[in-house]
Amino acid sequence: MRWWGWGDDAHAEPPAEHALAWLEGELGGSLREVRRHVALEEVALPASRLPAAVRDAFGTILRDDHEARVRHAAGRSYPDLVRLRTGALEAAPDAVLAPRSHDEVVAVLRACAEAGVAVVPFGGGTSVVAGVDPARGACDAVVSLDLGALCEVVIDERSRTALLGPGLRGPEAEAALGARGLTLGHFPQSFEYASIGGFVATRSAGQASTGYGRIDDLVLGLRLAAPAGEVHLPPMPATAAGPGLRGLLVGSEGTLGVLTQVALRVARAPQEHHYEGFMVPSFGAGAEALRELKQDGLSPDLARLSDEAETRMSLAVAGTGGVKGRLLGAYLGARHVRGGSLLILGWEGEAERVRARRAAALPVLRRHGAAGLGTSPGRAWLKGRYHGPYLRDDLMDRGVFVETLETATQWSNLFTLYRAVGDALRRHAPLVACHVSHVYASGASLYFTFLARQEGDPLEQWRAAKAAACDAIVEHGGTITHHHAVGRDHAPWLVREVGETGAAALRAVKDELDPAGIMNPGKLLP
Amino acid sequence: MRWWGWGDDAHAEPPAEHALAWLEGELGGSLREVRRHVALEEVALPASRLPAAVRDAFGTILRDDHEARVRHAAGRSYPDLVRLRTGALEAAPDAVLAPRSHDEVVAVLRACAEAGVAVVPFGGGTSVVAGVDPARGACDAVVSLDLGALCEVVIDERSRTALLGPGLRGPEAEAALGARGLTLGHFPQSFEYASIGGFVATRSAGQASTGYGRIDDLVLGLRLAAPAGEVHLPPMPATAAGPGLRGLLVGSEGTLGVLTQVALRVARAPQEHHYEGFMVPSFGAGAEALRELKQDGLSPDLARLSDEAETRMSLAVAGTGGVKGRLLGAYLGARHVRGGSLLILGWEGEAERVRARRAAALPVLRRHGAAGLGTSPGRAWLKGRYHGPYLRDDLMDRGVFVETLETATQWSNLFTLYRAVGDALRRHAPLVACHVSHVYASGASLYFTFLARQEGDPLEQWRAAKAAACDAIVEHGGTITHHHAVGRDHAPWLVREVGETGAAALRAVKDELDPAGIMNPGKLLP
Repeated sequence: MRWWGWGDDAHAEPPAEHALAWLEGELGGSLREVRRHVALEEVALPASRLPAAVRDAFGTILRDDHEARVRHAAGRSYPDLVRLRTGALEAAPDAVLAPRSHDEVVAVLRACAEAGVAVVPFGGGTSVVAGVDPARGACDAVVSLDLGALCEVVIDERSRTALLGPGLRGPEAEAALGARGLTLGHFPQSFEYASIGGFVATRSAGQASTGYGRIDDLVLGLRLAAPAGEVHLPPMPATAAGPGLRGLLVGSEGTLGVLTQVALRVARAPQEHHYEGFMVPSFGAGAEALRELKQDGLSPDLARLSDEAETRMSLAVAGTGGVKGRLLGAYLGARHVRGGSLLILGWEGEAERVRARRAAALPVLRRHGAAGLGTSPGRAWLKGRYHGPYLRDDLMDRGVFVETLETATQWSNLFTLYRAVGDALRRHAPLVACHVSHVYASGASLYFTFLARQEGDPLEQWRAAKAAACDAIVEHGGTITHHHAVGRDHAPWLVREVGETGAAALRAVKDELDPAGIMNPGKLLP
Repeated sequence: MRWWGWGDDAHAEPPAEHALAWLEGELGGSLREVRRHVALEEVALPASRLPAAVRDAFGTILRDDHEARVRHAAGRSYPDLVRLRTGALEAAPDAVLAPRSHDEVVAVLRACAEAGVAVVPFGGGTSVVAGVDPARGACDAVVSLDLGALCEVVIDERSRTALLGPGLRGPEAEAALGARGLTLGHFPQSFEYASIGGFVATRSAGQASTGYGRIDDLVLGLRLAAPAGEVHLPPMPATAAGPGLRGLLVGSEGTLGVLTQVALRVARAPQEHHYEGFMVPSFGAGAEALRELKQDGLSPDLARLSDEAETRMSLAVAGTGGVKGRLLGAYLGARHVRGGSLLILGWEGEAERVRARRAAALPVLRRHGAAGLGTSPGRAWLKGRYHGPYLRDDLMDRGVFVETLETATQWSNLFTLYRAVGDALRRHAPLVACHVSHVYASGASLYFTFLARQEGDPLEQWRAAKAAACDAIVEHGGTITHHHAVGRDHAPWLVREVGETGAAALRAVKDELDPAGIMNPGKLLP
């Protein structure tokens, strides 16, 4: 991972000329000046304050060199990248500890609790909500707990269950499962770098979670090392044994303890991936089609419906842009389809079932005015599915403020929320686009992308837009996050979502499992 | 509901002569002597100790007559019925309060917390784990909080969501939903009397939950009145906003507060119910077929696979017994099927989809040796699906110890657990039968029925058998309960399942939401 941005240089791809020109028109002014990041050694770090007791006890698994500290100082949010690029970090871990086993995690937590050292669990470091922000809280020092060495894989094929170490990256887990003909089916945009532990700790959703289920649906068991002790819940298909303790630890974002193993439901690896595009007359018509498909059990495994603005932007800039975008425009023109919303659907599984499911869904799509575009837009989307963060890096080089945020709500409230958040964002950014990417029987997610030219202090600019959107979300019945998690960025809004008494219940659990308050300070609940 | 047993006299049906004869052979000795319960007025109750402050404040919603107190003194477990029938209750509520609104619940909790009065939420009163046991705990008095008047219904058809009052009985909720072409799809054996609040508070599963989902899968939101305040989580299709607070309150069994409203996912009412029977060569073969169907997305909505012992018992005694049972025996004889396991499958939905799903599943069933018995056993099962508790009443009249318990585990552990629990029970009862009734991708439930002649103190006899089974369950990797909940009966085993640290986390939530410890003392965690 590039220390100042996303991914590696080999996979970066500069924006096409026509895309840049289109964006210049939308945002106003030239985007031709490129400002790169400072050099790694120019990033200023405070001297390490790690107590000698911790340093001496864990010397073999400790790093505190400049690069290790920088690489664990931030996630991959827009503000994180602004700070990294300018070398002006707010904070950095005093050291990085990389335990190799559950017992070593326990030992680290014990020592840190005794020495008053905060612990920030670190998986892939891809948080976009400051979830791995190296905050000290009330502690004197802070370590980043890199879980990369916890990468066990134990597969119970008969029970379609995998016990996975939290440090496994998405591709590593898929490779191990794929060798047995299985898949987790969990492909968030961060897939290439994010970790299994991060998925579970942040309650993430993958692009195909409409079909395979969100990570919270897949968790059958887990092992948590907390400062107060261990919670070991073996895999269980279902239980009525009291309050949902598994679900309470899923989404706890490292504030209660460290997930050292998770048991996840896995599926048979699909024989076929059939991904295709449709154009629907409007965002509203597309949403109605998706609602009907899901409620009647006819849903594809992936559904991604762009609103009119995102459709225009996609055709001009993103995966289906360039030559393909122009061809698509010509094709639509020839078929007398103007404007409208782009819909990508993905069907996965055994070939005959894919065909039967698709055949059952097509009449519903047609009834809502969907015009088939064939598999080309689907293949283009698959090819570019992890590419968004690279594009962000390029745009940031050119002084663009580019950010995304997501929410979810019931179907009956979807367009009220869509308009409210869109209106709030348009006061801060000229280009606001949205898509529905996860569909449920009772509602759907909304994922907003917004762009503006950087103006003034980029962090202040970000704060104002983010606050406006978050206020609009909680005021209009959305959840503060559908799959990015809470971290530090959403923490001020979480209490408004769960209420004072709900927050008090969560704090009581925190106080019980982490009495010294060393676990990931400042996240979830302020 | 008959105060001493289940249901009402109009629906009781005495066991057939041939069934009694068969049972006499299995259990040894005559079952012809019938001992009925004492008269209602013979049930001994202690004088009410309700503080005057509570009595004066809630006179309009209070009852403390003999019948009301007896009717709220017990659930419908075997020990409950033993105590009711002999008139020897351990405890009774000092009064019954029936609030008519969320605000009235809040007022009751406030007054009871101030006066040191324990509160036992009471829905349908059908708990089989002493979940509505009127224990005082450390309080001076105890009230039963009858939620029958909280029976609001607000339907959001577009979002396939219903906001339901906790006091609605199963049939009331289904009637309201059915009028709009919808169903909750939740049909536990207690359906005719159990309440919506009870379903959610106990994390219940219905007979068709393999298709419609357990109640925990259906909860989208809820409102909880706790002594410390209110937790109001509006319906939300999905969220990544921190630990699972909804799931933490689901299954809290009245120990944290009172559910005053729940938002549940509902489905389109099925056009067709296709229920049918199969005979499979063995319990093991049937389980393999169900595992394959579920893991490959071909599962029916209801699957109920009896082991060989339950198959024999069903044919002799239960829903498919009598003339039908003998005809079935003759039919199987003619087809040279001997012994084996009875499998009932139910398919619900739109007629064409039912046909297509069934057609896709039949090859898998045939491959595992299933022989079709047609729809007659399916119809018989549907007809008798709520009848078990009536049969229990009749058998108890005849001095039979009859009890059920359930667990679940991963597929890879299913037969280890099956043998361990069966072996433990056979040391206490000559007749032990089992079925799989809920199927998941990673595992399945096991539901045991066991019968013996009552011997010595029936409560001691029960305790010994129950403890042996529960020990076997936790020692062999099962959950202490798949859908009956924890209540008082399973509380000693819950800590073994969730561990000391897990239990401490749950206690911390309890202490936060119910600082005076008035909510349903003695349940969940001892």
